[in-house]
Amino acid sequence: MTTFKVGVIGARGRVGQAVCAGVSEAADMDLVATIDRTDPLQNLVDQGAEVIVDFTNPNVVMDNLEFCINHGIHCVVGTTGFTEDRIAQVKQWLEANPGVGVLIAPNFAISAVLTMHFSQLAARFFESAEVIEMHHPNKLDAPSGTAIHTAKAIAEGRRQAQLGAQPDATETALDGSRGALVDDIPVHAVRMQGTVAHETVIFGTLGQTLTIRQDSYDRTSFVPGVLLGVREISQHSGLTIGLENYLEL
Amino acid sequence: MTTFKVGVIGARGRVGQAVCAGVSEAADMDLVATIDRTDPLQNLVDQGAEVIVDFTNPNVVMDNLEFCINHGIHCVVGTTGFTEDRIAQVKQWLEANPGVGVLIAPNFAISAVLTMHFSQLAARFFESAEVIEMHHPNKLDAPSGTAIHTAKAIAEGRRQAQLGAQPDATETALDGSRGALVDDIPVHAVRMQGTVAHETVIFGTLGQTLTIRQDSYDRTSFVPGVLLGVREISQHSGLTIGLENYLEL
Amino acid sequence: MTTFKVGVIGARGRVGQAVCAGVSEAADMDLVATIDRTDPLQNLVDQGAEVIVDFTNPNVVMDNLEFCINHGIHCVVGTTGFTEDRIAQVKQWLEANPGVGVLIAPNFAISAVLTMHFSQLAARFFESAEVIEMHHPNKLDAPSGTAIHTAKAIAEGRRQAQLGAQPDATETALDGSRGALVDDIPVHAVRMQGTVAHETVIFGTLGQTLTIRQDSYDRTSFVPGVLLGVREISQHSGLTIGLENYLEL
Amino acid sequence: MTTFKVGVIGARGRVGQAVCAGVSEAADMDLVATIDRTDPLQNLVDQGAEVIVDFTNPNVVMDNLEFCINHGIHCVVGTTGFTEDRIAQVKQWLEANPGVGVLIAPNFAISAVLTMHFSQLAARFFESAEVIEMHHPNKLDAPSGTAIHTAKAIAEGRRQAQLGAQPDATETALDGSRGALVDDIPVHAVRMQGTVAHETVIFGTLGQTLTIRQDSYDRTSFVPGVLLGVREISQHSGLTIGLENYLEL
Repeated sequence: MTTFKVGVIGARGRVGQAVCAGVSEAADMDLVATIDRTDPLQNLVDQGAEVIVDFTNPNVVMDNLEFCINHGIHCVVGTTGFTEDRIAQVKQWLEANPGVGVLIAPNFAISAVLTMHFSQLAARFFESAEVIEMHHPNKLDAPSGTAIHTAKAIAEGRRQAQLGAQPDATETALDGSRGALVDDIPVHAVRMQGTVAHETVIFGTLGQTLTIRQDSYDRTSFVPGVLLGVREISQHSGLTIGLENYLEL
Repeated sequence: MTTFKVGVIGARGRVGQAVCAGVSEAADMDLVATIDRTDPLQNLVDQGAEVIVDFTNPNVVMDNLEFCINHGIHCVVGTTGFTEDRIAQVKQWLEANPGVGVLIAPNFAISAVLTMHFSQLAARFFESAEVIEMHHPNKLDAPSGTAIHTAKAIAEGRRQAQLGAQPDATETALDGSRGALVDDIPVHAVRMQGTVAHETVIFGTLGQTLTIRQDSYDRTSFVPGVLLGVREISQHSGLTIGLENYLEL
Repeated sequence: MTTFKVGVIGARGRVGQAVCAGVSEAADMDLVATIDRTDPLQNLVDQGAEVIVDFTNPNVVMDNLEFCINHGIHCVVGTTGFTEDRIAQVKQWLEANPGVGVLIAPNFAISAVLTMHFSQLAARFFESAEVIEMHHPNKLDAPSGTAIHTAKAIAEGRRQAQLGAQPDATETALDGSRGALVDDIPVHAVRMQGTVAHETVIFGTLGQTLTIRQDSYDRTSFVPGVLLGVREISQHSGLTIGLENYLEL
Repeated sequence: MTTFKVGVIGARGRVGQAVCAGVSEAADMDLVATIDRTDPLQNLVDQGAEVIVDFTNPNVVMDNLEFCINHGIHCVVGTTGFTEDRIAQVKQWLEANPGVGVLIAPNFAISAVLTMHFSQLAARFFESAEVIEMHHPNKLDAPSGTAIHTAKAIAEGRRQAQLGAQPDATETALDGSRGALVDDIPVHAVRMQGTVAHETVIFGTLGQTLTIRQDSYDRTSFVPGVLLGVREISQHSGLTIGLENYLEL
């Protein structure tokens, strides 16, 4: 069995700790280096890391990527803040190191990535489609970024099939009851003590509905996606945006 | 076994037909008279009806009730439009006929009535509570009357327990994403091809949620509640508003 | 807009009536011939039918197919009982009429077909997978054919990914509580008054689940799939088994 | 506001730690003493504890209860193993200390307690009722104790209403597909990676279903029930078995 030599950057953050635990428990991976604020990136090279996982912050992630790409280390990246300028910069570094792979993904929860993908596939077969997301009440924005992405994916599927407007005879409605329209798809956000992160997509046509639901029960739900990224990245040189591109769906 | 002699008023309407079928199939009931527009109410007396079921319309229901109450016939009523004046009038007729029972209910779907009742009971134990209703897209109003009643019942339960505001840290939200506030309870309305009438209530507190869900799959869902009303009404003389008062919960 | 000239065989059966209604309401279809027991198939030719829909029974379906294929009419078939011998016979007729398409599908409910397809795609990403189907209590077999197909599709997806056995530490269990094993996938069957046909597939991995659910609310749920078959069949000459092959997923 | 002076026995176990955290965060409680293996129970008296919470084990719980009851301290107990003999012994101690309350509960998750209670109330209105529980795959028994209790409560509700057998026309079934029968109620157990503890009860009658679902997302879900017990116990002298008796439902 291949063993992947993995380094984790941002290893002492809450997410980083979960990544380190996941890598350590994976039978086919060795956690060879853990980097946090003051640790030199050179440790990654010294310990022979083949792939790094980066859940840090926008202030340091570009330095991390430049170093790793230039040293031939693949990069699985969950850090946010990738503007078009930054994407262009990463591509430039990769051109000079053509064997290296970089995966940047806004969401590593496989169940969420599949929910979005299946929703886009299903959209064209149903006259009606709505999204309901539910999160813990400490969340600052509504609806969630994942729900907005999902609604846009559904809208794109509907446009390709020239489905037109959803049927809706509503004449009198209390403000807000019909949700927020994201690209003409109603999106509802529930804030609920005790929950973590959940998304439900409902599709309807004559006499039937299809429901696709994703539940994240705790903050480790991104780990399987990160490990999948580590295992597959050597097959995907260059820049890949979005875990769905690794799933061979 | 007691056999209930039942008359149905509005017998040829869509709802009335379903009531007639339900009464006919019930082993403990005889359908002794069916009345529609031009049929004389006197048939009810001639055929010995003990209970009538009235799903007609506001224009004729008061005449029906006056006749039945004065002839000692119990009345199970699903017709709408009962203003306070009308309620007072019915009470006056009943005072003159003290053995007669009248049940007026806005909703005879037992699953919906229980959802409202359980929601009111559960409300005080949970910091968070939201209502999501889903209906076919031909519905004219949003949210449904049942969802509004449910939200008000939850709010009343919360007030009695002095729960205060729901936790919600939302800072930026798309308009409508957080639903309509009914007595401070968020209510979300989904309109979905292929569905009939559905209501979900979610409650949350530390580490857990409780979900109560009601699904009506077709337009016969009010029949079990009507039959229950017919069976119990002789034990409830005078005016009763709401099927929940017959359920001994 | 193309208009499809459609004939319906078995037109007065319960399913056939729903197909006729669906074809009549479709803006892009003309219902040109309806055939039941004693009607001559020649009517299909006389009325210029381009596609027929056959929901009949195993005793007559082969005669219907032979006639239609030999007259250049495409066939959308929901009738059951296609043994390997029958499949071979249909293929032979089609070889002699190479422009004709025949679609034979065990399930035309698009939501059910997508549930099976998405379940097979998702299976390899999750350690755990179980199927719960729910039907009205008059159903004679348990679990449903759809649930068995779904379990086999999941098992196939797991085998390809070499997932091995599902995690399950159960030491003491009441007989039946863990469901029936279909190709090592637990399948649970619920029989519930008031319901129609419903299937839920749950997948789990670290910290998350993915749930795919299909609800059929009434016996019209196969109609959208039949209409899709009518629209697409001219693009699929020869024999196709399973509606999923028309969905371009 | 009353402030409750609370002691926690078994304070360094996983459950005990969550109780300590919950008590510390409650605005109306003071955590005055924490007891683990080697700590003397006398500390409870010295620190003025009015109520103790005991999540220990069957070997030590009886000693704890004897001490606390005899010192006039109320006891909220989640420890298991209370045989009839032990119950009798606790009652005897309480007779000598009539102002003291003891609450012994097999389940402190309020959502689970309400699910059982509502299920028993609802049972008599529906011809069909089934229970589906879902737990993490490390669970040793199937179905869960909560699911068995729920099924028995439903069966009791059905008996009182003389409902008879559930409708079920199944003629051919794969072994196990129809679940385990607990007092004639089908119970299905799902084991799913990523989940914690979940229970769904479905009831059906003509044209409708009622679903009551409980989700525990993490191991803190018993804390709100324990805090409720602490707050209410001074109103319930003597022995109480089951949190539902404190809920004033």
